[in-house]
Formats: sequence, C-alpha cells, structure tokens
Amino acid sequence: MASGRTNFSSHEFPMASGASPFSYRTNSAYQRRVVRATKQLMHAVVMEKLQVENGSIFQITDMGCSIGPNTFISVKNIVESVELKFKLMNTQKKHIQVLFNDHAYNDFNTLFASLPSDKSYYAHAAIGSFYDRVFPDKSIHIVNCSYGLHFLSRVPNNVENRESVAWNKGKVYYSHSKEEVISEYSKQYEKDMECFLNARAQEVVPGGLVFITVPARPNGTPHSKVIYNMLADILGSCFLHLVKQGDIEEEEVDSFNIPVYITSPIEVEEAIKRNGSFSIEKLEILSKETSPINGLTAKDASVHIRAITEGLIEEKFGTKILDKLFELHAQKLEDAYLDLISGEAISLFIALKRKKNL
Amino acid sequence: MASGRTNFSSHEFPMASGASPFSYRTNSAYQRRVVRATKQLMHAVVMEKLQVENGSIFQITDMGCSIGPNTFISVKNIVESVELKFKLMNTQKKHIQVLFNDHAYNDFNTLFASLPSDKSYYAHAAIGSFYDRVFPDKSIHIVNCSYGLHFLSRVPNNVENRESVAWNKGKVYYSHSKEEVISEYSKQYEKDMECFLNARAQEVVPGGLVFITVPARPNGTPHSKVIYNMLADILGSCFLHLVKQGDIEEEEVDSFNIPVYITSPIEVEEAIKRNGSFSIEKLEILSKETSPINGLTAKDASVHIRAITEGLIEEKFGTKILDKLFELHAQKLEDAYLDLISGEAISLFIALKRKKNL
Repeated sequence: MASGRTNFSSHEFPMASGASPFSYRTNSAYQRRVVRATKQLMHAVVMEKLQVENGSIFQITDMGCSIGPNTFISVKNIVESVELKFKLMNTQKKHIQVLFNDHAYNDFNTLFASLPSDKSYYAHAAIGSFYDRVFPDKSIHIVNCSYGLHFLSRVPNNVENRESVAWNKGKVYYSHSKEEVISEYSKQYEKDMECFLNARAQEVVPGGLVFITVPARPNGTPHSKVIYNMLADILGSCFLHLVKQGDIEEEEVDSFNIPVYITSPIEVEEAIKRNGSFSIEKLEILSKETSPINGLTAKDASVHIRAITEGLIEEKFGTKILDKLFELHAQKLEDAYLDLISGEAISLFIALKRKKNL
Repeated sequence: MASGRTNFSSHEFPMASGASPFSYRTNSAYQRRVVRATKQLMHAVVMEKLQVENGSIFQITDMGCSIGPNTFISVKNIVESVELKFKLMNTQKKHIQVLFNDHAYNDFNTLFASLPSDKSYYAHAAIGSFYDRVFPDKSIHIVNCSYGLHFLSRVPNNVENRESVAWNKGKVYYSHSKEEVISEYSKQYEKDMECFLNARAQEVVPGGLVFITVPARPNGTPHSKVIYNMLADILGSCFLHLVKQGDIEEEEVDSFNIPVYITSPIEVEEAIKRNGSFSIEKLEILSKETSPINGLTAKDASVHIRAITEGLIEEKFGTKILDKLFELHAQKLEDAYLDLISGEAISLFIALKRKKNL
C-alpha cells in the first residue's frame, strides 16, 4: 500500500487492507449475512417512511464503508428501494449520488477497483470520521452505517491511566474487567453516539433516514456473555501468555486497549432519545442466526478478529508478534468453542428519521 | 498497491503511484509552476465572472486530480477566491464541497493520506473519466482541469491498424509521423474535447465556470518543434534501439502508441465554439518560463516522461525493459539537450462560463 498506514492514530481504526490474507475483504462474510437480513427492513422503511422532496439530486452515504464488497450490497439494496419509491411516486427525474465514506486511511484503491460496473448511481468517496461532520448541512437523504458504530472513536482515557481507578491493568478489553472500566467504555460509547447523531442531524435533510446496524448485547445480558466480547477477552489472555513467554512487556499490555464497545437495545434507544433529533421508526433485534460467529469455525473467528484488530496491534507492538498471537488465539478459541457458541450474538437494526421541526 | 494496476485499459492512463521513485508525486514540480501561474488568472475570473446563486452548497471539482500535491494547491487557490467573493457579496452561509476526480485506478490512498489538515472544505472523491459524465445535472459550480486534457481517452484506432494508411509503423507517437497519423490524433482530440465539454455542459450550473490548463503548441508551430513532443519522439527512438538490440519485437512497437496530444490555442477555441455551451472568458498563453522543461535537467525530463508513461509501457511490455529504456532516454535527451531547449513549451489557460440559455 502506498498510503502511510503506520501514521494512523488509534482512533482511526483501519481495517486490514485488501491485499492481506487477513483482510476485512475476505473475512466479512458474516457481516454479509447481516446485510442480507436488513434488506427487507430497509426496503419497508424506504417505502413507508421516506419523504421525497423536490430537487434533482438524491444523496445516499454508506458511512464506514471499508473496502467492499458489503458496502456495494447495502448500497444496491437501498438504491433499488429508492428507485422503486421514485417510480411509484412518479417524481421528477432524480440523480442518485452515493458517497462512500471512511477514514482517509481506508484502502479506497481496493474499493474503487471493485465498484460494480452496472451501478445506476454516481459513485463518490467522502473522507472523514463519522463521529465528525463529513457533509454540508441538509445535504444527505439516506445514511447507512452497517457494522461501524461498535468501533469507538478512541480508547477511553482513564483505562490507560495508571493513576485512575479505571486503569485496565492486565487486560486489553472491558468485558471481563471491573465495573469502573466498563463504565469508562460505556461513557465513551455515549459520547461517540452523541457525536454521530449530532453530526448526522445537521447533515440529513428533514424527513431523511438513518439506518444503523450494530452487533449488540441483549438487554440484561452480562458483557462477558456476548460472543463478540468473548473473542476479544480470549485475545487478551493471549497477550498475557506472550508476556509470560517474554515476547512482550506487561507494561505494553497495560497500555493497550481495543476501542470497541458492544451496545444493547436500551443503550441505543437512550442515546437516540437523549439526542432528540431523530424519531425511531424501527428497532429490530436480528437473531443469532443472521449474526457473527454463526457457522464460523474457531479458526475463522480468529481470522475475523485479526482482520479488525491487526492494524491497532501492529501500531503498538509491531508486526513481529502477530502470527504467534493469532495462532494462540485460534487454539484457545478451539478449546473454548462449546462455551463460545453458548454466548449471545444478536445484531440490532435501527431506522431513524430526521425530525422536521426541532 | 492493492488495486489491480495491471487491469487498466489504455484509455485509463494512470500515473505511477505514490510509492514509486518515478511517481507523478515527486515529478510534478513543473506542473506546480503552472498552477502558480494560473492562480491570479483564476482569481480574476472568479471575482469578475462567477455568478453566485442561492443554495447552501457550492461544489468545486478538480478533474484528473492525480495523487497530489498540485491538486491541493489548485483547489486552495480556487477556494480562497470563492470565499472572498462570498464575503464581498455577503451571500448566505455556503458549504464548499470539493470533489477530487480521477479514474478508479488512481492512487486515491496516497491522495487522501495527504489531504491538508487545515482545509476549509468538505473533501470527497468522485470516480470516473472526465470524458464521461461524473456528476449529476447542474450540480457543479467550478470545474478545474489542470494538465489533464492532453491525455486522450484512447489511442486513435487506425494508428494501430496495419491495414490503415494511418498505421504508425515504427513509431510510438504522432509528432514526427506522417500526416495521416497526425490527423488521427487530432481527430481523437476533437472527439475527446467534445465529450469533455458535453459532459461538463450538463453538470455545471448555468453561470458556472470551467478552468482548463494544458501544455500547448503555438499556432503554426510544427508538432515536431514542441518540447513535450520532442521528449516523446526521443522515447520512440529508444524503443527502436531496444528492437535492434533484440530486447523487444518490432511488432510490439508497431502496436504501441502514447495517447497524448498537444493542442494549440486555435484548436481549443474551435472545439469550444463547436460545442457551443460555454463562453470563453479568458484564453491566456503562459510563457515557456512557467512551463514544462524549463529548468529541468535531461535526467529530470526523462524521469518526468517516465512518470506519465510507465503504466502504459508496463502494460504492453512488462516491467523488464523499463530501466534500460529510460536510461537510454535520459542519455539521448542529454545528447539532444541544446536542440530540445530551443523547442516550444507554452501552456494555455482557458476560463469558460456555462451559458445560461442554450
């Protein structure tokens, strides 16, 4: 890759690029199942709730698009629904513009090289974090953000602060940690959701839609019983294993944390209501069958976790420990497999509509 | 690079990517001089001619942006002028959106990694050839195309057709070739300009501006006396040298042509008038001092030609001949240096305004 991959800061969280055997591209199959499961839900919301106003340009953005191919499937689903809606409503001719959004360090070269040749929209890329403003005021009609909002904008400050009660010593994730650590992660999630919703509230036209899909934790289920979290926890134990073997220092592990948070339906709902700019048109829980891990072998699950954490680990520890770490990880997942598959693995689909008057 | 560089077809003409020592990025210094020279011209046109209408979004595109940094300089110049104009006219608050345009195979990763951090605009990328439609109807306020329109959309058909009188046997470029070959190149240029102007006529708002900067041939000067062409002609003689040495086959050279055409003021003017959608607000000849080759050593000039032709040559001949070919090229340029610097090397700056009523 020509881009300065080593320059990204932790809050930018790039996926492994297209060329890597551990790339997001080759390991996003389970997310594709979620994309398919949400197709009918999005279609229904577009048909029933989308308010089409005058203007010849209709802008759709897929935020946190990564490098494909899932973004193309999501976008195709939305575009087809929108075109059908235009047809039924007999609207003036509209040009559909799709803005693929991700960080500057996303591998856009791979994305662009695989743009569908038969697309019926103008394809653009929009650079920036979805926790910030990315578009002008009232310029976007539909936002899709699929499997993006569990990535926090940053590691919560205090969990890497030795002086804090929330210091996450000996761990790299929150779900098996003390209450103070969990609380810091959940507060960071609240802040990030507020930033996301606030930015979108300004960018989306009144009556416009926001679709969010995220992996989630059922209300009341402990963080430690969510499969996604269990995979990360086991990765944490692998880091400690490498400390014992002298491959890395304990201090390095103490100051490394994965900025991911798995929300629950109630937390999402609260965040949206607190923000106040959107009405909730749909909030559906997608079953485990449509969701992470289902059908994945231990090895596959490990490769998936590698695809989304490799960049961060490399930044902190260099490349030297990667293979050993993930060999160990795959082995431990194998050993814990029965435990793992008893965990929870739902996803949430939420459809929001920008309120007209605030 | 993660993208399928070997897949591009000749009409896509990618620059060498950011990582290469022969990259466009490190060899675009002379184009930067042109960008600087056009700054004042663009500023004057924006202040005098731009008609600012209602609407809160103002869209600027740099077409054929390549990988930077020149695109950032051009864009900054235009944005500064536009912001000043808004201020003086006391317009409603406007959001400036900049759409960096190039082929899907451009190295956008490098471009995005070096986006200025202090930019005052929303940065997007728009994928596609500027010879086709890239944007919705009436959505763009200012188009800039700097050093892009001398790249033809394709090699003219007949120059690689053995049955045609325009077959360009033993050559890789038109400027030292027979009249029929020159004519095919010039007809292709006319077609391409019509495609460019036609697409822009639909995309640019009435009263919107199009800035074009291209290397050019003074009216009446033979094609063979233009430095840009002389550099390409000498490259052609290097190919023949490699044929003699048995490195490549003569047939390969016969079926390889560089799709570049150096226009003249009169040709540009005719193309614009023939199209009919734009008024010419400015047509300035930039002197040799601001332009290609000036101040470049033979070695630098060779590296520059390599940056813009390497992708094409590699596609046809593979990578094996590249180093030898360009060593020879640098040597021949050295030998021909006095001849070379006596050639012509102007650039043209043209400012167009989209007519209101057609």
